[in-house]
Amino acid sequence: MSHLQQSFTVKFVYNVFFTGKLFESTNSLLTDFFTQQATGDTKKKLLFVVDSGVIDSHPDLSVQIKSYFSQHIDLVELIPDLLIIPGGEAAKNDPDLVEKIVEAVDTYGIDRHSYVAAIGGGSVLDLVGYAAAISHRGIRHIRIPTTVLSQNDSGVGVKNGVNYKAKKNFLGTFVPPVAVFNDSEFLYTLDDRDWRAGISEAIKVALIKDKAFFEWIEANAEALAARDMTAMSYLIHRCADMHLQHIAGGDPFEMGSSRPLDFGHWSAHKLEQLTNFELRHGEAVAIGIALDSLYSQQLGWLTEADTNRILATLRTLGFSLYQPMLDADNSAGVLKGLSEFREHLGGQLTIMLLKGLGVGVEVHEMDADRIRRAIATLREHELSTTV
Amino acid sequence: MSHLQQSFTVKFVYNVFFTGKLFESTNSLLTDFFTQQATGDTKKKLLFVVDSGVIDSHPDLSVQIKSYFSQHIDLVELIPDLLIIPGGEAAKNDPDLVEKIVEAVDTYGIDRHSYVAAIGGGSVLDLVGYAAAISHRGIRHIRIPTTVLSQNDSGVGVKNGVNYKAKKNFLGTFVPPVAVFNDSEFLYTLDDRDWRAGISEAIKVALIKDKAFFEWIEANAEALAARDMTAMSYLIHRCADMHLQHIAGGDPFEMGSSRPLDFGHWSAHKLEQLTNFELRHGEAVAIGIALDSLYSQQLGWLTEADTNRILATLRTLGFSLYQPMLDADNSAGVLKGLSEFREHLGGQLTIMLLKGLGVGVEVHEMDADRIRRAIATLREHELSTTV
Repeated sequence: MSHLQQSFTVKFVYNVFFTGKLFESTNSLLTDFFTQQATGDTKKKLLFVVDSGVIDSHPDLSVQIKSYFSQHIDLVELIPDLLIIPGGEAAKNDPDLVEKIVEAVDTYGIDRHSYVAAIGGGSVLDLVGYAAAISHRGIRHIRIPTTVLSQNDSGVGVKNGVNYKAKKNFLGTFVPPVAVFNDSEFLYTLDDRDWRAGISEAIKVALIKDKAFFEWIEANAEALAARDMTAMSYLIHRCADMHLQHIAGGDPFEMGSSRPLDFGHWSAHKLEQLTNFELRHGEAVAIGIALDSLYSQQLGWLTEADTNRILATLRTLGFSLYQPMLDADNSAGVLKGLSEFREHLGGQLTIMLLKGLGVGVEVHEMDADRIRRAIATLREHELSTTV
Repeated sequence: MSHLQQSFTVKFVYNVFFTGKLFESTNSLLTDFFTQQATGDTKKKLLFVVDSGVIDSHPDLSVQIKSYFSQHIDLVELIPDLLIIPGGEAAKNDPDLVEKIVEAVDTYGIDRHSYVAAIGGGSVLDLVGYAAAISHRGIRHIRIPTTVLSQNDSGVGVKNGVNYKAKKNFLGTFVPPVAVFNDSEFLYTLDDRDWRAGISEAIKVALIKDKAFFEWIEANAEALAARDMTAMSYLIHRCADMHLQHIAGGDPFEMGSSRPLDFGHWSAHKLEQLTNFELRHGEAVAIGIALDSLYSQQLGWLTEADTNRILATLRTLGFSLYQPMLDADNSAGVLKGLSEFREHLGGQLTIMLLKGLGVGVEVHEMDADRIRRAIATLREHELSTTV
């Protein structure tokens, strides 16, 4: 009975760039990146996978990309055909899309030193990141997030994934991208729902970590709702920075018991599923934040005044804080989200609640009746404001 | 134009245990392991996935496992049904097997803090490791390798994978196991081909890194061929140790240009595919070693005497060093293996050759005619010895 101990560390480094008009010939960010990455042996290939919604809003994107890289054919070999796939959470339910990307990797001979770049919302980034992570045990993956949500949260992190039997991110890996390019140009063409939805992740991280940031959002809620790009750029930068710090400072691949920043998320994941993903992730998170804030208030941890500030900020931004599926109170209902949330993260149930603005605390159980009372409050408020 | 830099390191630690009769009640290795892993919150589940070939040779295994864990129900919750899947490389071509394991993870509610343990040869470990790595972004994975090859090489490393369109390990990840238990008991029931096949990986690592180890294998080749367990235990321990050191000392997830220990492998992978995996991996590697040794000799890098010592050692062990598919000299033939090998590892073609016993050197091209001459030498020798 003997043993050998294996022990090593792996270092991961990547940059998150903030820019505009990434593919204009005067923007050298991408060429600088590929120049730095060049190792002098073989030329690398570059395959773009693009969200069909982005193509709809930017029909000239394909031409722009080809034009950009035609001036830099020595740096990287662009695969001229963009692979276009549908976006939105529903796309993550379709195993054929993963297969389609893997097949393209095979067909175009994209090797482990080559690149797959994804342009799109969080779902496309998740899907492409997953396909890239499992192909050849990991192809270099570049993310170009096009929504507020993906630019300030999911797109800058280290996770990817697809759904399995409609269970969110049941299949996935922890694999950092080699670079993230946040291009504000894409935000102008977002519809109002997508513009708004991403803001809820910033509110989430502010409420559990940074009261001053919450107060900034509160003070700028009307400007944000009116699509002020200066305010939005600050919000995205600050939120992305906090998200990156949480990953680096903790347990990046969540191997121990540390948790992601998931305040308001247990019910959000379930609501997305119960509405067949009609509710977008950020919209569901806004409801989840409202619900868990009310729950925190019931515990006596959050004052009524602070709770109302949170709800008022969410409403000023235009979020609807009640969804009829909240009342699906049966074995398949929202409360089931608690056990699914525990199962996905593993180990003991851990839920983030608030002990004040900017002060998150973890609990290991939630009371069903108290959750029902919080839901009732949201329902009553919705009825009173819509009459 | 600004950027945020993300930078973090992730530490991976696991033990490779060498034992016998792992599931006898007097063997405390597994209970010690689970005791050390216990974190005091929820009880972890444990799902076993077992190679059907192992069950055939050890029909009492299921009873043994149940009996072992029935004495330790406080430590871990055993899923009573073993999931039994076919082994051998062909199993890695079947996507339904990955699906079957993922489905079991879902059905039994195996979370990220629970365990999936694989018992079997390298293919089953690769398959289960892959399914565990992608489920919930990574379930804790225990390996119990049952063949020489998996105990001294693949099973102790950090890779997993399955084939895609018969391309070897086209899909996979770099994810270390949480523990490896090498149980010598399983080696007694191996057929001679599997006993022998695993030895070629030890010859491979000895030839490129450690002349003394090669000379030990040469001196013990008859004992190994005669199934001497003491010799085999030493060989496995030394080979596993060198494999672990190479991983930890280099670039564990092969993110840069460093290579795995793959002397003799470019043709081996292709031969496996060309024979529809009739040829086992270790058998193909033995041929690959012979081929690249002869090639090294042709370059004047290896003396005829040293080349003959290598070929003689392989033959004493019982390896056949010629396979008719070596002569499949067309666009789908063995030479195609060079470009596929480059593509799978990415970047520039890099092939390990020998500049002496224990001295591996990397080259970036191979000459087709010289390869054909090395094949001809193997063919002629085969004909002369079988007449």
